[in-house]
Amino acid sequence: MKIITSVAAMEKEMRIHRDANKSIGFVPTMGYLHEGHMTLVKKAREENDLVILSIFVNPLQFGPNEDFDSYPRDFDRDEKLAKNNGVDLIFYPQVEDMYKDSFSFEVKVVNKVNVLCGKKRKGHFDGVATVLIKLFNITQANKVYFGMKDAQQVAIVQSLIKDFNFPIELVPVNTVREEDGLAKSSRNVYLTEYERQEAPQIYKALISAKSAIINGEKNSYNVQNAIKEHITQHTSGVIDYVEVLSYPELETIGELSGKVLIAVAVKFTKARLIDNITVDMKL
Amino acid sequence: MKIITSVAAMEKEMRIHRDANKSIGFVPTMGYLHEGHMTLVKKAREENDLVILSIFVNPLQFGPNEDFDSYPRDFDRDEKLAKNNGVDLIFYPQVEDMYKDSFSFEVKVVNKVNVLCGKKRKGHFDGVATVLIKLFNITQANKVYFGMKDAQQVAIVQSLIKDFNFPIELVPVNTVREEDGLAKSSRNVYLTEYERQEAPQIYKALISAKSAIINGEKNSYNVQNAIKEHITQHTSGVIDYVEVLSYPELETIGELSGKVLIAVAVKFTKARLIDNITVDMKL
Repeated sequence: MKIITSVAAMEKEMRIHRDANKSIGFVPTMGYLHEGHMTLVKKAREENDLVILSIFVNPLQFGPNEDFDSYPRDFDRDEKLAKNNGVDLIFYPQVEDMYKDSFSFEVKVVNKVNVLCGKKRKGHFDGVATVLIKLFNITQANKVYFGMKDAQQVAIVQSLIKDFNFPIELVPVNTVREEDGLAKSSRNVYLTEYERQEAPQIYKALISAKSAIINGEKNSYNVQNAIKEHITQHTSGVIDYVEVLSYPELETIGELSGKVLIAVAVKFTKARLIDNITVDMKL
Repeated sequence: MKIITSVAAMEKEMRIHRDANKSIGFVPTMGYLHEGHMTLVKKAREENDLVILSIFVNPLQFGPNEDFDSYPRDFDRDEKLAKNNGVDLIFYPQVEDMYKDSFSFEVKVVNKVNVLCGKKRKGHFDGVATVLIKLFNITQANKVYFGMKDAQQVAIVQSLIKDFNFPIELVPVNTVREEDGLAKSSRNVYLTEYERQEAPQIYKALISAKSAIINGEKNSYNVQNAIKEHITQHTSGVIDYVEVLSYPELETIGELSGKVLIAVAVKFTKARLIDNITVDMKL
């Protein structure tokens, strides 16, 4: 497994693979890899000649009060995990190499951002879009893999690719869960033991909501309330949001129809957890 | 020569050429082609297997009071000119196909814009950057050709490519001039006969400034003043700006050093002419 830390070296390397018509699968990450990432890697491994994983804690997608400096980092562990899971190349650039002082552009996402996590994380998806434009170009990848855990990110990156005609296909990958249903996340380590025991109730609430919809519930307000009640009753977490939106448009809907995203964020003492489920009412 | 009018068809076509490792030269235009464009085509023809010319009057780069609707268009004439000059493919998309209603991003240029023509054309280069991100992706070109006549555009597109790591090389092409030195432009036809005789004095002023710098002049105010005086004395035009900037940073400088851009805009009765010259003091 190769490790490349310079942008220029990575560009050079990837153009060789691209010119050799290798199919390139790309898994962008901020490191501190977990099983969720490895599911993306596994999928990429099945579908491509070459699997690239980037590790870059992107300052642009952190707000001024967010945890850029304290975001967990462990490159040695990441390296082993990547190697053991069949990654061919880790791209591990430095911030100063990605964003020179002379960086002259701002990218702003104007749709799909004022809902879910985007509502409170002003500028977050602007930073995501900016770094992905760079990473798509640097990696020259044919396919990029994202987990459905961040469904808003998937919807926005889908738009980025379509609106700017990037020659890359987004492959959404289902959320990986612990045996008890909790969505895997780097932030789960911040949960207290007690909170860790309660946390699976978030997914239980989503499953119940999906069942209710399949059994005929069409009112998004009822769905939201049932989820709020379940989480409030069964956990010590504080609900940040429960939203029911059309997917992938991410528009608020009263009466449910078509493809629907139900998404939740819950704050625990030191961790804010997100989870979601989609229901396709046409099926 | 092929003509492709749909974005999807163009993407499909260009990926075939790219996968065949053809070298692709790209000349983006807004149509109404003239000799300046053909110099770009000629250069692209020399350097690439395939020459793509796009014709797209990009609404995003026109201000609310600018001439988007009345911008001259003549596709039949453009088609003949392109064909006679060795273009392989014209990409001629519709506005609705380039910018869907759901277009979800804004690109803003934050450096190099508050000087020269950009100072008065708010948002112009944002529109240029947006359409070029799309066109670079759609065409999959290896090289893109721009005339140095719009030096600010060259400097900003250079940043766009570098900042976002587009795998494309910008080839700046020298301004094409009439025998008397006047920079060729579609707008020269709007000059009166008398103005047409005076107009070459703009380039003469630039040449004199370059000589003065080569002979030791290091003060940018002196350079500016000498140009203003020359143009005021020798023409009936009204000076819009004379700027001396570092290149390609486009920053105002007092004492000249390194690579310098001297750029001028002069208003005549019915035409505003621009011209520029660069001086590399390191040489």
